[in-house]
Amino acid sequence: MSVNRSLLSNLRVLEVGNYVAAPFCTRLLADLGAEVIKIEPLSGDPVRKWGEQIDGRSLWWSLHGRNKKSVALNLKAAKATDLVLDLVRQCDVFVENLRPGQLARLGLPDELLKQAQPKIVIAHISGYGQSGPGRDRAAFGLIGEAVGGLRYLTNHPPGETDLPPVRTGVSIGDSVAGLYTAFGIMAALWNRDHDGEGREGCTVDVALSESVLSLMEGLLPEYGKLGKIKQPTGGGIATAAPSNAYPTRDKSWVLIGANSDPLFVKLASLMERYDLLQSPDYADNVSRVRNAKVLDAEIAKWTFQYDAEDLLDKLSAADIPSSKAYTAADCAADEQYRYRKMVREVFDPAFGENILHAGVVPHIPEMPGTVRWAGVEVGRHTSDILTGLLGKSPEDISTLREEGVVG
Amino acid sequence: MSVNRSLLSNLRVLEVGNYVAAPFCTRLLADLGAEVIKIEPLSGDPVRKWGEQIDGRSLWWSLHGRNKKSVALNLKAAKATDLVLDLVRQCDVFVENLRPGQLARLGLPDELLKQAQPKIVIAHISGYGQSGPGRDRAAFGLIGEAVGGLRYLTNHPPGETDLPPVRTGVSIGDSVAGLYTAFGIMAALWNRDHDGEGREGCTVDVALSESVLSLMEGLLPEYGKLGKIKQPTGGGIATAAPSNAYPTRDKSWVLIGANSDPLFVKLASLMERYDLLQSPDYADNVSRVRNAKVLDAEIAKWTFQYDAEDLLDKLSAADIPSSKAYTAADCAADEQYRYRKMVREVFDPAFGENILHAGVVPHIPEMPGTVRWAGVEVGRHTSDILTGLLGKSPEDISTLREEGVVG
Repeated sequence: MSVNRSLLSNLRVLEVGNYVAAPFCTRLLADLGAEVIKIEPLSGDPVRKWGEQIDGRSLWWSLHGRNKKSVALNLKAAKATDLVLDLVRQCDVFVENLRPGQLARLGLPDELLKQAQPKIVIAHISGYGQSGPGRDRAAFGLIGEAVGGLRYLTNHPPGETDLPPVRTGVSIGDSVAGLYTAFGIMAALWNRDHDGEGREGCTVDVALSESVLSLMEGLLPEYGKLGKIKQPTGGGIATAAPSNAYPTRDKSWVLIGANSDPLFVKLASLMERYDLLQSPDYADNVSRVRNAKVLDAEIAKWTFQYDAEDLLDKLSAADIPSSKAYTAADCAADEQYRYRKMVREVFDPAFGENILHAGVVPHIPEMPGTVRWAGVEVGRHTSDILTGLLGKSPEDISTLREEGVVG
Repeated sequence: MSVNRSLLSNLRVLEVGNYVAAPFCTRLLADLGAEVIKIEPLSGDPVRKWGEQIDGRSLWWSLHGRNKKSVALNLKAAKATDLVLDLVRQCDVFVENLRPGQLARLGLPDELLKQAQPKIVIAHISGYGQSGPGRDRAAFGLIGEAVGGLRYLTNHPPGETDLPPVRTGVSIGDSVAGLYTAFGIMAALWNRDHDGEGREGCTVDVALSESVLSLMEGLLPEYGKLGKIKQPTGGGIATAAPSNAYPTRDKSWVLIGANSDPLFVKLASLMERYDLLQSPDYADNVSRVRNAKVLDAEIAKWTFQYDAEDLLDKLSAADIPSSKAYTAADCAADEQYRYRKMVREVFDPAFGENILHAGVVPHIPEMPGTVRWAGVEVGRHTSDILTGLLGKSPEDISTLREEGVVG
């Protein structure tokens, strides 16, 4: 294998997306080497205005838009619709996350895309899916997380606080839906291509709510059979103990996962609490789960005697899974991340210097994904793509630009 | 396309996994039709003892183990290692999530797997990855979530409570790593197969910590350029407002996402708070984020006048993204989920009746994934696979069973 070859270097993807889910999906494809052409309105993807900015340039965008080509199109113009269909003819994959039906209203129903290119894999991402009585309900990431059952569970146990359930800190519903879509696209492409039969592409219909619900482990089986409504467990875990965040003397939190029998023996020994090992209350995982609250309090009494660094040294020496709750600064400084290029500097001309990026997941040692460029300005590749892929002349492009069709 | 054909029906996958990450990955592959052979110790995957059980049968397992074939092998026996290599020769994919190096210590290093089957795609899932100074650190899902930066952010803003940061309620680090692995496997298979060149398989090296960090949006760019350490925001979101869980008169929480200019106009109009629309404090998203705390309090005052159902009716009529925080009961009853078979009954002989399962994500309308069977008992398919794939005789299998090699 050539060192310059990427896993997905022969794949061309057209994105008509915005916000997080579809652009996250195409980031994953682009990171592994796919050519991603992102269609944006002339005003740009709204995420370009999210988060911290410098001179109107979003730092998140440097990462979110990386490795993608931006083509600015006014999709309300009929000529733009034709350009999209011309692009579809040159692509393997079409990804979108507009509201269900909106693409058809813009003159781009699935049938027309398939007619233009029967081998196209069409991926739709939406709040609730492309079918069913609820498909048209308004949806955002947080709604997908709530309807998927995640938000209710991300909280302290009932009665412990009046504060609202907690967001995971990132748009987890969108990213998980984006991940499912990337998986579904690659599965559809493998089906299309793997035995040379030249099959047609198929459709990948991903709902945020469903993506989240699919992670819910025993929630549905336990409710269906026992009527059990799974409850939030704060920092702990309902099925394994001990596993929680424990306080330290220097007012930090240290996570400890000692929820297997051998690990619990190690932890109790480190605590010099051999009595815990003799008690039937903690003899196996089922018992420890039943008595998790008391056990957690015993462990917290012990951790609170130490500063976080000292405690972590002890736990690490005893080979017990443990960590502090990493902040941005901890992530940036972590030597393992740096070694694996999971934290890396990427030159971004928009800022005239290196910007700190997360690396590429998954790591493919034989053909590592790369960050070829940081997120570009709106329409940076309009002319390149219209010329190179669609054979338009500079005059054609000027006319389209004057007519407000492209930007 | 035949109606009985699944997207991945020609794909054979061997799993040497346990707990959540690798089995979740293979569930995704199996749901889309891959043949998944799960190698388990004779005592079974430990998850079989997690969560609610009936007569020692875990309800979670009905879902987690579905569509997979279980082969019980004692990997400490040399003969078992040979059997694994024989199986690798018949497979496209090998997935494992033992601790890094453990497979080599069992006599199954990557080199040997590739020698047995050059076309194999090998996927490793671990806490920190297969290389680097930290690869051997003990890791569990919660550690990956902490090191990935998620746990710190899943909390109320600093100073609001003494309670620990919150777990998302499920093993999100494991599932996200499993998703990345499924995506990476399909990308590697597409690379291997798509143009008929008959390339070798490659390696997919997924770390829990890296999988989580890759979701962290602007966290690293903003820290690197501005030194900003992203802080937890409780039920809200740092980059968009208003978006939060708001209290109702009947002591429930309703999520509202009105964080675009048109949606905010709708919400303020519904609240009959035209003053908010005239204030420069809420004129655009950047301003609303800056004043989110005051704005949330105004919205909470309004929501608290209504019971959840009434409030949701109003919000829905105004086409504002909103939802209650779904519990297991809400998920099970949701008509959209039922319509899309995302909540479905699956007959499970272990319980002698239907068990409630989450459906298949992504939805592929042309070739929908199916639940062919619920999670089986340990070793259910040992004889089938040893006979059918490896050509062993009943006598061979009896001998292996007597020697404690298979179960």
